[in-house]
Amino acid sequence: MERKPDFSWQDSPVFVGNLAETLGPWLKGQSYSQVLVLTDTHTHVHCLPRLQNLLPYPFHTIQITAGEQHKNLETCTLIWQQMLLHKLDRKSLLINLGGGVIGDMGGFCAATWKRGIDFIQVPTTLLSMTDAAIGGKTGIDFQGIKNTIGVFQAPAAVFADPAFLHTLSDRELKSGLAEVLKHGFIGDPKLLDSFANLHPAALRTLPWNQLLTQSIAVKVRVVTEDPKEKGLRMLLNYGHSIGHAIESYFLGTDSPLTHGEAIAIGMICETPPPHQTRVAQILEPFFPKITIRKEAMPTLWQLMLQDKKNSSGAVRLAIPDELPYTMQVLSITEQDLSEMLLQYTNASY
Amino acid sequence: MERKPDFSWQDSPVFVGNLAETLGPWLKGQSYSQVLVLTDTHTHVHCLPRLQNLLPYPFHTIQITAGEQHKNLETCTLIWQQMLLHKLDRKSLLINLGGGVIGDMGGFCAATWKRGIDFIQVPTTLLSMTDAAIGGKTGIDFQGIKNTIGVFQAPAAVFADPAFLHTLSDRELKSGLAEVLKHGFIGDPKLLDSFANLHPAALRTLPWNQLLTQSIAVKVRVVTEDPKEKGLRMLLNYGHSIGHAIESYFLGTDSPLTHGEAIAIGMICETPPPHQTRVAQILEPFFPKITIRKEAMPTLWQLMLQDKKNSSGAVRLAIPDELPYTMQVLSITEQDLSEMLLQYTNASY
Repeated sequence: MERKPDFSWQDSPVFVGNLAETLGPWLKGQSYSQVLVLTDTHTHVHCLPRLQNLLPYPFHTIQITAGEQHKNLETCTLIWQQMLLHKLDRKSLLINLGGGVIGDMGGFCAATWKRGIDFIQVPTTLLSMTDAAIGGKTGIDFQGIKNTIGVFQAPAAVFADPAFLHTLSDRELKSGLAEVLKHGFIGDPKLLDSFANLHPAALRTLPWNQLLTQSIAVKVRVVTEDPKEKGLRMLLNYGHSIGHAIESYFLGTDSPLTHGEAIAIGMICETPPPHQTRVAQILEPFFPKITIRKEAMPTLWQLMLQDKKNSSGAVRLAIPDELPYTMQVLSITEQDLSEMLLQYTNASY
Repeated sequence: MERKPDFSWQDSPVFVGNLAETLGPWLKGQSYSQVLVLTDTHTHVHCLPRLQNLLPYPFHTIQITAGEQHKNLETCTLIWQQMLLHKLDRKSLLINLGGGVIGDMGGFCAATWKRGIDFIQVPTTLLSMTDAAIGGKTGIDFQGIKNTIGVFQAPAAVFADPAFLHTLSDRELKSGLAEVLKHGFIGDPKLLDSFANLHPAALRTLPWNQLLTQSIAVKVRVVTEDPKEKGLRMLLNYGHSIGHAIESYFLGTDSPLTHGEAIAIGMICETPPPHQTRVAQILEPFFPKITIRKEAMPTLWQLMLQDKKNSSGAVRLAIPDELPYTMQVLSITEQDLSEMLLQYTNASY
């Protein structure tokens, strides 16, 4: 019996729960000619076993090297070559088993293979379960700039199984936590209650099935109202304008940050004083302060100018007005950016 | 005053006529932040002068080397690098000034840049005016297989100006003629009247504005009813299953064929005897017979198996049942293919 999806976005059902009860029955109801599973060196070992017995078809796997630095055209070429080798036709299915890199890049390769074949997202990180897998963004980095090449294409379905959270390190779990908390800030204050005054070590003991459902609900609500990022979806960008620049900057250093660590900084920086203390008090137990050195500012500014949401050389930020629910879009200067970063570095909450 | 489009497909208006009366007024009604024109070594010299005075914006050009062999990821990378260099944002416009290679590849680069920016098609060959520019197919070749990577994305508008036909060689003009005649066969018998008993040397004297309008009308009708190639659009594939394989095969020889020459052969081969004579009699004055050697058959078969319309190892052909308007889809074997090619090579009409 096919289970009813927990959410539905465009034609894309989203299931939260044990894959055996969600993906298994769903696949039985489909009639794909062939199934190809995209994994990385990590998910091939730790996640594929949980998936493979559910596949009713003969299937092949494509394994790529794990890591954001491989989310590029060269790796796409390897994936497309395997698709060619396995003679993937238009009625084939690609299953993206992994985090955001696998989901974004696999989605892009599927969306562009013979002008589009079906793909499903089986996110294995908290970050991808709550964010990347939902909303139809696919893409890769280009010349070091994140998600420069890609398309909007909704997956045929999304299956978020909290069991995969056991395959993550504490640092990876916390990286996803930043997006969960973001969903709390922008759309569901109740979601934050589970994390207030929580000792970071207790994170794994939380009821993730329920928290994921609450967090995904916020994302689904926003992307349903604004599938192509024309307005409301700016809400989801909270913390990301500055956060992405910080993430890119530290990628080039000896101590790269996770996505969550970078956008946690971004959220604090992008929040005006009336709300900043509250936001910082929830985030900082999980994301201790990082010092942003003054010398980094011009590079960060250049990175922000490259952000695809910016038009004509201005940097636009979605700044929370009232949390949750309302944002205002502001244009900022390089000087404004420096002040926001210094305020973050010097403040204590 | 903006002219009413001759056709409209999805949200994509199609204009036939002098660019100064179509593109010029249309552009004035838009508010793009930046305009980038994609040209090749040929259209940069011969076609850009007709276009550039109509651009109300400061604009940049990207020039690539002409030729199907450059319709690949390496050239896309060059285009994306230029887009990055010129800081193309989401409100920018890419103008594809050229034939099918420019339109398909430029469309793909625009559709995937920051998950999609607007592009318009300004086709400069008969082939692209009547076929490639209409219908939203974008893409590139991959590992020698045509259009393996791409997406469906309708252009913001299409501008077909017959004046560009003067920039074509006789052979290029005839290449496009094959698609015009195909539109006659599948959808508008009256269109064929202009070509019956016409001396090939008189081709340039025909009323192309009107013929283009008739030919585009057939294509627009079909893609409107079947935007994503689920059924009816198979009609447009008439001659292309065998034709594409022949085109790919000869690409690797000393005497490559044009697209039109290849699909003219394809149309004759794919037509059952009751109609074959009529089809061949219209085509052969423009497309003299080419001998397909027996040794080529296994390679042609392998090439057909790669066709993206084929599922699960079978080769499916859209064969005209009654011309115009009805096709049947048949599965054929390698032996059937050999017989069709031998029948073509040996017949005289």
